Amino acid sequence: MSVLAIGTVAFDVIETPFKSAQKVLGGSATYITLAARYFTDTVRLVAVVGGDFPASYLDTLRDNGIDLKGLLVDREGKTFAWGGRYHYDLNQRDTLYTHLNVLKTFDPVVPKSYRDSRIVCLGNLDPTIQRRVLDQIDRPDLIVCDTMNYWIEKTPASLRETLQRIDCLIINDAEARELAGEPNLIIAARRIREMGPRILVIKKGEHGAMLFLDDVIFVAPAYPLEDIQDPTGAGDTFMGGFAGYLAREGRITTDTLKFAVIYGSAMASFVVERFGPERLLALTEEAINARLHAFHDLSAIPATIPLIGVSS
Amino acid sequence: MSVLAIGTVAFDVIETPFKSAQKVLGGSATYITLAARYFTDTVRLVAVVGGDFPASYLDTLRDNGIDLKGLLVDREGKTFAWGGRYHYDLNQRDTLYTHLNVLKTFDPVVPKSYRDSRIVCLGNLDPTIQRRVLDQIDRPDLIVCDTMNYWIEKTPASLRETLQRIDCLIINDAEARELAGEPNLIIAARRIREMGPRILVIKKGEHGAMLFLDDVIFVAPAYPLEDIQDPTGAGDTFMGGFAGYLAREGRITTDTLKFAVIYGSAMASFVVERFGPERLLALTEEAINARLHAFHDLSAIPATIPLIGVSS
Repeated sequence: MSVLAIGTVAFDVIETPFKSAQKVLGGSATYITLAARYFTDTVRLVAVVGGDFPASYLDTLRDNGIDLKGLLVDREGKTFAWGGRYHYDLNQRDTLYTHLNVLKTFDPVVPKSYRDSRIVCLGNLDPTIQRRVLDQIDRPDLIVCDTMNYWIEKTPASLRETLQRIDCLIINDAEARELAGEPNLIIAARRIREMGPRILVIKKGEHGAMLFLDDVIFVAPAYPLEDIQDPTGAGDTFMGGFAGYLAREGRITTDTLKFAVIYGSAMASFVVERFGPERLLALTEEAINARLHAFHDLSAIPATIPLIGVSS
Repeated sequence: MSVLAIGTVAFDVIETPFKSAQKVLGGSATYITLAARYFTDTVRLVAVVGGDFPASYLDTLRDNGIDLKGLLVDREGKTFAWGGRYHYDLNQRDTLYTHLNVLKTFDPVVPKSYRDSRIVCLGNLDPTIQRRVLDQIDRPDLIVCDTMNYWIEKTPASLRETLQRIDCLIINDAEARELAGEPNLIIAARRIREMGPRILVIKKGEHGAMLFLDDVIFVAPAYPLEDIQDPTGAGDTFMGGFAGYLAREGRITTDTLKFAVIYGSAMASFVVERFGPERLLALTEEAINARLHAFHDLSAIPATIPLIGVSS
């Protein structure tokens, strides 16, 4: 199956206690597509960059098999730029700046050849722009969507409209609590699903991820990482692994969704091991499969549950 | 196998946004033993109460099968009393007061008939008192220990001594980070195990629990609760379920430890559903077994992992 991702392609400035770098290739669409391409050959991107975007970065994306027909290069404008500084424990970060630049006037145009995309990833963007993409495509098998506190607070009505048109929302636990206005995550999940998305994934960083369906709650562990270099892009990478795996399987079922959460978690666990998207550029199928086995072992229990009162 | 628990038996004042109550039967040894007794007939308690401790509370413990030979009643003193107020989301609480009373001079005397206890639970107490208990018993099969930020900060040397004599430490994630002086939980776990305990369990509340052994990390989910009434005693109840289940199995192996974490989580998920220890007084084997199945389903994935690159 094909995956279409809309989102940002950006210059990131990343400062961690261990390393800092300028103009790192970043953005939600970058991480989504670079993760998804390990699972399917057809990965399409809709985004905009400025005239300052280097040809070498375009080559990186192209060499990794990303279809760039939907990438608009706005010669007059400057590429969207984001800067973040991580605290010592890497769980907290301050945004240094957000220069929208070419994003300010971004009105996505989806190439005709993308209309038939089967899985669509709406990266974190203005919910109105997210819907503009949906207006230009046939009904796909699955619409996956991300958002953030900014849109929850600033454009709640527009976000609600988008939520009614998607199948699957992937957000973190703080966003879920804020969106639902409810501290209990289980109640929050129920309320969010009532807003539209039949499938809800809540990412909890070091505490793993949860999948909510009609009658199923699935809890996936986080991979135990001792050495995290840079959390940038972990959430987008999760979405890329999640969507990519489903595209590979070609079926949206309870079981494929569970494994999609694990593949999303696995891809995210890789990306944070190196700076920027570096680790995503050099993964092997063997490494991914080995990590899947590690995820399985983390929560594996013997098949027979030793009940009480049965024997003793 | 027999379980011996040392800890507090207390009067709790509990204030939640939904309900408040005075002189609730509480204390670590109370919750540990009331949970453990669902798994084994021999549950022994070492603690002290004052002359003000009501006969009806003694009956409650006795009627639930707890051996009270080790419960000292100090006629001249008053029972240890603790008061706590929970915030709206129940994840945070303020301690209103801690009146040590009879605990101030508590020097535990372990009855001779308890010397052969196979699993010993050291509830959260002064680490020196925890060791005084170990001095009075034969080497059990398993020594399980709890502690808290107060002892980590005020009596670090004594705590280190106790850690060298135990097999298993059960603490929450904030305590683990503080004890190890390390924000990364995986590194923190390694450092704590280097301090003595071969087995480490880190409780993470709504995010589940983690078990660390030599070459195994096991992640157990939390039960998705929409209606939490009172978190008091959840940690002690976890320990009681954990130790009780191991006593029932009679073997300390990787598999029994994994299920012990799940049984601990299950018992804790029950106790928070009602006020104080109420729910622990009226559980059935059927209810416990049903919850075990629910825990299994939460993290269950199909046995065959769909690897990539194998077929597509």
